[in-house]
Amino acid sequence: MKRQKRASNEYMAMIDWDRQDRQGFPEVVYCEGKTDEQCCSILSSLANTYDVCMGTRARPSIYNQLLPYISDIQYDELSRIIYVNRVPLHINGDRIIAVVTAGTSDIPVAEEAALTAELMGNQVNRIYDVGVAGIHRLFSRLDEIQEANVVIAVAGMEGALVSVLGGLIKKTLIAVPTSIGYGANFQGVAALLAMLNSCAAGVGVVNIDNGFGAGRLAHIINSQR
Amino acid sequence: MKRQKRASNEYMAMIDWDRQDRQGFPEVVYCEGKTDEQCCSILSSLANTYDVCMGTRARPSIYNQLLPYISDIQYDELSRIIYVNRVPLHINGDRIIAVVTAGTSDIPVAEEAALTAELMGNQVNRIYDVGVAGIHRLFSRLDEIQEANVVIAVAGMEGALVSVLGGLIKKTLIAVPTSIGYGANFQGVAALLAMLNSCAAGVGVVNIDNGFGAGRLAHIINSQR
Amino acid sequence: MKRQKRASNEYMAMIDWDRQDRQGFPEVVYCEGKTDEQCCSILSSLANTYDVCMGTRARPSIYNQLLPYISDIQYDELSRIIYVNRVPLHINGDRIIAVVTAGTSDIPVAEEAALTAELMGNQVNRIYDVGVAGIHRLFSRLDEIQEANVVIAVAGMEGALVSVLGGLIKKTLIAVPTSIGYGANFQGVAALLAMLNSCAAGVGVVNIDNGFGAGRLAHIINSQR
Amino acid sequence: MKRQKRASNEYMAMIDWDRQDRQGFPEVVYCEGKTDEQCCSILSSLANTYDVCMGTRARPSIYNQLLPYISDIQYDELSRIIYVNRVPLHINGDRIIAVVTAGTSDIPVAEEAALTAELMGNQVNRIYDVGVAGIHRLFSRLDEIQEANVVIAVAGMEGALVSVLGGLIKKTLIAVPTSIGYGANFQGVAALLAMLNSCAAGVGVVNIDNGFGAGRLAHIINSQR
Amino acid sequence: MKRQKRASNEYMAMIDWDRQDRQGFPEVVYCEGKTDEQCCSILSSLANTYDVCMGTRARPSIYNQLLPYISDIQYDELSRIIYVNRVPLHINGDRIIAVVTAGTSDIPVAEEAALTAELMGNQVNRIYDVGVAGIHRLFSRLDEIQEANVVIAVAGMEGALVSVLGGLIKKTLIAVPTSIGYGANFQGVAALLAMLNSCAAGVGVVNIDNGFGAGRLAHIINSQR
Amino acid sequence: MKRQKRASNEYMAMIDWDRQDRQGFPEVVYCEGKTDEQCCSILSSLANTYDVCMGTRARPSIYNQLLPYISDIQYDELSRIIYVNRVPLHINGDRIIAVVTAGTSDIPVAEEAALTAELMGNQVNRIYDVGVAGIHRLFSRLDEIQEANVVIAVAGMEGALVSVLGGLIKKTLIAVPTSIGYGANFQGVAALLAMLNSCAAGVGVVNIDNGFGAGRLAHIINSQR
Amino acid sequence: MKRQKRASNEYMAMIDWDRQDRQGFPEVVYCEGKTDEQCCSILSSLANTYDVCMGTRARPSIYNQLLPYISDIQYDELSRIIYVNRVPLHINGDRIIAVVTAGTSDIPVAEEAALTAELMGNQVNRIYDVGVAGIHRLFSRLDEIQEANVVIAVAGMEGALVSVLGGLIKKTLIAVPTSIGYGANFQGVAALLAMLNSCAAGVGVVNIDNGFGAGRLAHIINSQR
Amino acid sequence: MKRQKRASNEYMAMIDWDRQDRQGFPEVVYCEGKTDEQCCSILSSLANTYDVCMGTRARPSIYNQLLPYISDIQYDELSRIIYVNRVPLHINGDRIIAVVTAGTSDIPVAEEAALTAELMGNQVNRIYDVGVAGIHRLFSRLDEIQEANVVIAVAGMEGALVSVLGGLIKKTLIAVPTSIGYGANFQGVAALLAMLNSCAAGVGVVNIDNGFGAGRLAHIINSQR
Repeated sequence: MKRQKRASNEYMAMIDWDRQDRQGFPEVVYCEGKTDEQCCSILSSLANTYDVCMGTRARPSIYNQLLPYISDIQYDELSRIIYVNRVPLHINGDRIIAVVTAGTSDIPVAEEAALTAELMGNQVNRIYDVGVAGIHRLFSRLDEIQEANVVIAVAGMEGALVSVLGGLIKKTLIAVPTSIGYGANFQGVAALLAMLNSCAAGVGVVNIDNGFGAGRLAHIINSQR
Repeated sequence: MKRQKRASNEYMAMIDWDRQDRQGFPEVVYCEGKTDEQCCSILSSLANTYDVCMGTRARPSIYNQLLPYISDIQYDELSRIIYVNRVPLHINGDRIIAVVTAGTSDIPVAEEAALTAELMGNQVNRIYDVGVAGIHRLFSRLDEIQEANVVIAVAGMEGALVSVLGGLIKKTLIAVPTSIGYGANFQGVAALLAMLNSCAAGVGVVNIDNGFGAGRLAHIINSQR
Repeated sequence: MKRQKRASNEYMAMIDWDRQDRQGFPEVVYCEGKTDEQCCSILSSLANTYDVCMGTRARPSIYNQLLPYISDIQYDELSRIIYVNRVPLHINGDRIIAVVTAGTSDIPVAEEAALTAELMGNQVNRIYDVGVAGIHRLFSRLDEIQEANVVIAVAGMEGALVSVLGGLIKKTLIAVPTSIGYGANFQGVAALLAMLNSCAAGVGVVNIDNGFGAGRLAHIINSQR
Repeated sequence: MKRQKRASNEYMAMIDWDRQDRQGFPEVVYCEGKTDEQCCSILSSLANTYDVCMGTRARPSIYNQLLPYISDIQYDELSRIIYVNRVPLHINGDRIIAVVTAGTSDIPVAEEAALTAELMGNQVNRIYDVGVAGIHRLFSRLDEIQEANVVIAVAGMEGALVSVLGGLIKKTLIAVPTSIGYGANFQGVAALLAMLNSCAAGVGVVNIDNGFGAGRLAHIINSQR
Repeated sequence: MKRQKRASNEYMAMIDWDRQDRQGFPEVVYCEGKTDEQCCSILSSLANTYDVCMGTRARPSIYNQLLPYISDIQYDELSRIIYVNRVPLHINGDRIIAVVTAGTSDIPVAEEAALTAELMGNQVNRIYDVGVAGIHRLFSRLDEIQEANVVIAVAGMEGALVSVLGGLIKKTLIAVPTSIGYGANFQGVAALLAMLNSCAAGVGVVNIDNGFGAGRLAHIINSQR
Repeated sequence: MKRQKRASNEYMAMIDWDRQDRQGFPEVVYCEGKTDEQCCSILSSLANTYDVCMGTRARPSIYNQLLPYISDIQYDELSRIIYVNRVPLHINGDRIIAVVTAGTSDIPVAEEAALTAELMGNQVNRIYDVGVAGIHRLFSRLDEIQEANVVIAVAGMEGALVSVLGGLIKKTLIAVPTSIGYGANFQGVAALLAMLNSCAAGVGVVNIDNGFGAGRLAHIINSQR
Repeated sequence: MKRQKRASNEYMAMIDWDRQDRQGFPEVVYCEGKTDEQCCSILSSLANTYDVCMGTRARPSIYNQLLPYISDIQYDELSRIIYVNRVPLHINGDRIIAVVTAGTSDIPVAEEAALTAELMGNQVNRIYDVGVAGIHRLFSRLDEIQEANVVIAVAGMEGALVSVLGGLIKKTLIAVPTSIGYGANFQGVAALLAMLNSCAAGVGVVNIDNGFGAGRLAHIINSQR
Repeated sequence: MKRQKRASNEYMAMIDWDRQDRQGFPEVVYCEGKTDEQCCSILSSLANTYDVCMGTRARPSIYNQLLPYISDIQYDELSRIIYVNRVPLHINGDRIIAVVTAGTSDIPVAEEAALTAELMGNQVNRIYDVGVAGIHRLFSRLDEIQEANVVIAVAGMEGALVSVLGGLIKKTLIAVPTSIGYGANFQGVAALLAMLNSCAAGVGVVNIDNGFGAGRLAHIINSQR
């Protein structure tokens, strides 16, 4: 029962190589909860196979360990995405995804959504810090938002941005609650509940701080022909 | 240990007769959880002493039992308030309390707030069904709201009305979450959390469906000289 | 302060007549929490103005009161939708919305989604009772599901259907948790959490039992050109 | 898609310059969740424009970075408020805001409320550590409290101070639950629920540890003429 | 596998006949969740064996079915206790248990505590409706409370009575939260948390609405020599 | 879009006919949340195909509607199981499943477990009302329990029976929390948490009130050769 | 508004000097949430006045700062109690308080209870690690427990020890849930709920990890004559 | 009252030496919440008595302190199990326990289950990273899983693996939710609720991250003859 006798790859991931064919983009690595060793192993395999691939919630240490071996790997500190993007996917400039945030604290989650959408081949328009406490800021950029094909609204606190936007636009609205707040915010639960209960019907909600999920959902919708 | 040997008034309330002096309005009876007998006994005592007094969350049966004895008792079905108002308190028409609701389903709670404020001697302006899903409805009545001295915002679902209003007015804003909604609304918890976390700072929140508390708080603020 | 002196319409809704222009479909009435009188008043106004309009979570009593006045009003008991559909909106038969349920108990919520989507002008394919406990049932109808442009997955209990579907299809997946279950299901919370945490990235979740929201979101996505 | 190519200010806040006009005080910066860089940028802009402005939940590092550039910036460690107060707003000494705490552990939150109110131009009377476990301490200072125009009660644990005060004063009472406590306190939830359910009607509650919100609400009420 | 073939007593309770010896009072029947048939069977057995015995949360139908067979069985509607008390246990009039309530709505739970204590042989002093919103009511009866050997405080809403009492008396204080309240009261959770977090140390808390448990605990303490 | 034009079986279940082969017993119908029509349709199909089949949480009305068509259908009121059992499965009398309850109120859930196990071909020994408040009752029947091959412990309130049993037996222990209790019991959550956290390691827990799941799990384990 | 101009003692506690008279023991300092400076100031004042006094949840740094000034101050690392005990209160050796734990991890909380009781003048018998998973350990020491006048049961995980003890002893039982456990233990909530719902009636529960409260309650009961 | 006067072993554990006889394996030490000193003391005693024994959730420091004294003690970093295994228990190679995980992040919990089962004398087959997002990975190893006598499914996020597996296998399925996830995952609550509500009946669930409990339960079932 000596642990060291086992092949070390027994504890490594079983990559879903079929994902690219089945869903149009390689498996994305969720780095949290995995060891650096596991993350590097999976990301190496992916980066050696695909021109575009990515991992989310990555620590800088993963990037530092991979860089000597994969010279074109990139790391975005704000969104914590690690990726290669050798041959960017074709971007249709007419179909814009708008990523809107209520405050500046919501930007890291918004960037996870934006960069995900970009890597999957979408044009993104960032419209940050337009929360409803100063609603004129939102109205001053409403035209831009309405021109988008899909809108991702990212908000913490009470998430009211989603309900206001939901009543003003015709296109798909994706809501991302963030964990920004304190006390009875319960790490984003207040915003999550607000978005699920939005009086503006027809909003698709993702998990708290799940910028990646929102970016991917926006991409799927935007890819629809 | 025979129960019937006890004086029946042992189970009756100990009315806070000092309340009128201490806080400017007689004790208000919260009827829920009390028997009809208890409610009638307390309300009779109050109505025989004061020209203006009230009970909240009253059942029609209480009104029906009291009417033969207190001919000028009144009952408002919508707000479930039972009251006498023989010599209405002086109303200062320059200091208006605006009661604003997001939807029509929020009206019963709003009416509890409005009627409470009126009985305590305030001028009330009702502005109902101006939720943010159709935000032009709110803007079309914003002047009226801004003219008020105190604003009570009543909303269920995700309660976004409070945050939008909070960014647009200079005067005191009181927020009342209602239990309107379903699923992840959790009987008003979603709206309550949203209001407590409102990005519009300086909002005073009361309990879910507590129109009475909001009306009373608005009255206290409005009475300030 | 006599309540009866007030114009009764003070307590009536302020219909968002602009909604049709702004968002392409008239305001939809959420009947729960409104009195029959309020529901009938709003629905009458809408039905006298539009050829297609609808209310959700309607009680039969509302239908019975409206029928003498609006002879072509219809009521669907299963989904509890009340509607008129005089001149059905054009349906594009190539863009199908698949509504999939895990069990038979989920059908009422699924029907709310399906009928909403149909009234808004979409072709719907119902695929019911294909939950993962007998996963061959799901695979036997996977082709149909994959042909759809948008998929709505409706499930209670633990909502695992969403994760399995999410790994198998390329198109947009909307998840509707239902309150079917007992004990630690907490009226749909178990399914809601499962869907928000789905390992299949890119799923848009709506509130528990919110078939209407899912139908409307699917319609918005399906309308995208 | 090189991140560094973007203008760095794309990730900076969109300051609500209109706030001063609309609500009588410049936008207040909530520093938590923002990077030092973001906080300094916003605070610099505000301090260069206004004589009085402030940020809450500020880390000392923000103060240290700003001091070389804004020599009159001040930092209060207890309340974690960073501010400039060059030309203090006029204080009406007749309208006092009393800030009352149950214990000494509640003082940091109380100071956030007190300093906020002071910066906005109010006279504040601090009455600390008068919780109900030794209720004579409260009664010994009741006169002072009753003389105030607005009372802010700050309490953790079970928050009983609010209910006792609420029955003893005629003026507006604002309740601030703090996260002081352990176990079934749930980081302030026990106090929050107690305050929302206070048998003393007419209390306005703010979020857990939200001294700023309480200070601002007290200021709005105190400013009313 | 015919159900009817089984002896019907297979589904009957296994009475803990040893309880009287082990703990000084016969097993007490918790009637909720048991069928009338089960309750009557257990109560008959007990009443045929002991001179004093009782059941809690009893429905009137149980009393009506037992009365023809046990002529001296008694039922107290307020507390829902069913009991026989043929040879009352000796009461020591010097050791009084005070049962104190915050409001009149708390009386049924208080009566469950009081009657339990009386049946077990204690002298009880009822002091009802002395909640802290009108704290002079409490002080006017403080002497009586301080004379008691054990005090049971029964309160719903925010349960502040417990903390105030806890700071004023030297003797044992038992706290009973009640489910009186609404909204963020969560059926007594607010009061329960307040009592568990009371700043007045040394309070023993029982379950929400558990008057019986409080009465029994008070009896055990009162019996101590 | 006429609802009546659809084949009514579109809303009927898609029975998992393969279940018997795959898992050794036909699909079991969960009747709650299904209409009588749906339940009867599924149960008819099953009863016409199999000699032994069952439905759980069945209402008497389902039984009454089926009886004229399926004369040997049986209904057990206590457990709410509807079933046919024409050719009972072989029972191995040496491998006993013990079903143990803490109180009499837990019996309906226990019977759901017991009858499920019996219908699947197991010998069941019922040992009811042996909760730990009178632990000698448990010890007096411990031999019987220890003789069983699998033990199902059914308990509400605080579920302590499971931990005590878990320390005393060598065989598999399955824990079923019931919703018996009130207040801070939260409809069985207290017992569920207790069982999940049992200091007696190696206990398999099922959902609150899920007697069926426990019976089935016991059967699977008991069938193991 | 210079902070440094204020007298530093404005932020110091208002000691309840009356507590000793009113409740028989000086105010006890809860050190968590207070600065070292505040703790030392209060403890110095108390130690200079009383021969016996104490603080709970104290950090070693407080002890280290006080030791040079109060040479007989003592600190118990296990229970985190800081105290002076110059003239120990008279201990009645006939009235023992038993402190019982389920596991070894519960000992720090148990020691807080035990040392509190000892400082207040009680004889304590420690009986540790006798949880129900190996119930013979409990029975082997049952005589000792039954001889005690008051029993404090300290347990984490699922807290079953309380229910078993509650059925076996005649004297007062105080239950202390601890935060020992993980996962669905929720930092002691599982044990807290179990103890509140104990089938053994008449148990007084204190907050999670509140050894001090239990020790004080036991002392009050034990002091009763 | 000098603490140091007490025998230090008063704070040491009371080992359940009878456990081996009663349940077939020595007491297993849960190291979390115990001091290094306590853990070492207990583990030494056990290792000096038994050839096979173990502790869970052990810190490396415990291993480092024990190694000089117990040269054959082993520590597995991944599962955090510390153990001696001098004379491995006989393993029946025909009765395999399959440990299956949804992702690579679930492996530490899975290893706790696997190593526990191995130490108790079972053959374990590890099948990792076969979650349902890429369901072909699961099907590709289904034969292996179906050959096992007992299956342990370990999953975080939404835990859908359990429901899919539950519908595909005939043998006992044990479900272990892990705390892998974020946001509305609530440290494993989402997976726990999903598993308790699984539509695949007959699943035994253990606490979040409780690999040990699952391994032990699997062993008990696997040992059954």
